Amino acid sequence: MTEPKSGVFISFEGGDGVGKSTQIKRLAERLSTVGWDVVTTREPGGSPGAEAIRKLLVEGDKDKWSPMTEALLMVAARRDHLERVIAPALERGAVVITDRFSDSTMAYQGMAGALGTHAAATLHALVVGDNNPDLTIILDLPIEEGLRRASDRAGAETRFESKGEQFQQAVREAFLTIARSDPGRCVVIDAGGAVEETERAVWRAVESRLPAISAPG
Amino acid sequence: MTEPKSGVFISFEGGDGVGKSTQIKRLAERLSTVGWDVVTTREPGGSPGAEAIRKLLVEGDKDKWSPMTEALLMVAARRDHLERVIAPALERGAVVITDRFSDSTMAYQGMAGALGTHAAATLHALVVGDNNPDLTIILDLPIEEGLRRASDRAGAETRFESKGEQFQQAVREAFLTIARSDPGRCVVIDAGGAVEETERAVWRAVESRLPAISAPG
Repeated sequence: MTEPKSGVFISFEGGDGVGKSTQIKRLAERLSTVGWDVVTTREPGGSPGAEAIRKLLVEGDKDKWSPMTEALLMVAARRDHLERVIAPALERGAVVITDRFSDSTMAYQGMAGALGTHAAATLHALVVGDNNPDLTIILDLPIEEGLRRASDRAGAETRFESKGEQFQQAVREAFLTIARSDPGRCVVIDAGGAVEETERAVWRAVESRLPAISAPG
Repeated sequence: MTEPKSGVFISFEGGDGVGKSTQIKRLAERLSTVGWDVVTTREPGGSPGAEAIRKLLVEGDKDKWSPMTEALLMVAARRDHLERVIAPALERGAVVITDRFSDSTMAYQGMAGALGTHAAATLHALVVGDNNPDLTIILDLPIEEGLRRASDRAGAETRFESKGEQFQQAVREAFLTIARSDPGRCVVIDAGGAVEETERAVWRAVESRLPAISAPG
């Protein structure tokens, strides 16, 4: 994991229902069209081992795990995902676009949750090290709108959405704080308009931050 | 988890097949007879959440997880076990006897495995902190004898035993190194004789290290 990578690593972050998966799909299509090998993935999960850990995390009662245990499971899944999927794809020169990465642990567990930023930063240093995304796109939306969109999705994976509006507000603010603290990596995009409008803003950010991406290397 | 505890926390450590579970059962019976509330438990596992994580750890191919991912899952299970089972039992004044604790992570992953001692120590500080056992009994046995005894046990949980004799030898040496580095907490007991002989040696160690244990507080 310390070898020089030739690909491009992009993460999408933001609260529930901000439209990450839609925007990732559209960006991936656009990059494929211009000839990139594109790998889209997500956290928690993204590799067979990490998906098994994801099942432990996303199902069940909201107090199933303590903040520390939850964070340890999250970073265990991240490490597997990084080693088995992300790093090999970057080494062969692909664009990797992930739906959530380390900033979600810092926002949900470290800043909005009870884990604390020190523990989140310690785990990040140990588990991710220098393998940070080249670009992180934070989709921002008022939480009422995000929760409304998220509740339209069915399924058993409701552990995080069920934590309530105050928590979601803290998560939104945490992502904005992270963006301010690392402006070289992060771009905040207003996701409140039409899907096409957000898509154009995402593409402008990708083109301006990663000039080489308009054509594959 | 930072509250003063009134119980007694004992861990048993050692390679596979050294006889930990037999000795734990006999010590627990003896302590129950003199009136102690005794909780016996094991790692990885020991709580419902940790047992779910244990399933991910012990089943499957020996290269299923990388050293770092394996260690993160181990300490996630340990944290759940500590918070949900060990700490509450100690707070109510029980004797907790666990089959493996942090020293197993240091020995198997940190010293014998590829994780390294720095990562193992960082995780220990973050996840266990000062919640160390009052007494750790390390059962020591030549590895040929331990592997012979372990192979007599059936079951699907063979991921660690399958790592080979050289690895088991490194684990044995790791436990002896840990004992030398923390002599106030650790006692090494030769487990090569008859079960009753080892049992007497365990009891002598418990009585001499924990004088108050002959009668419950």
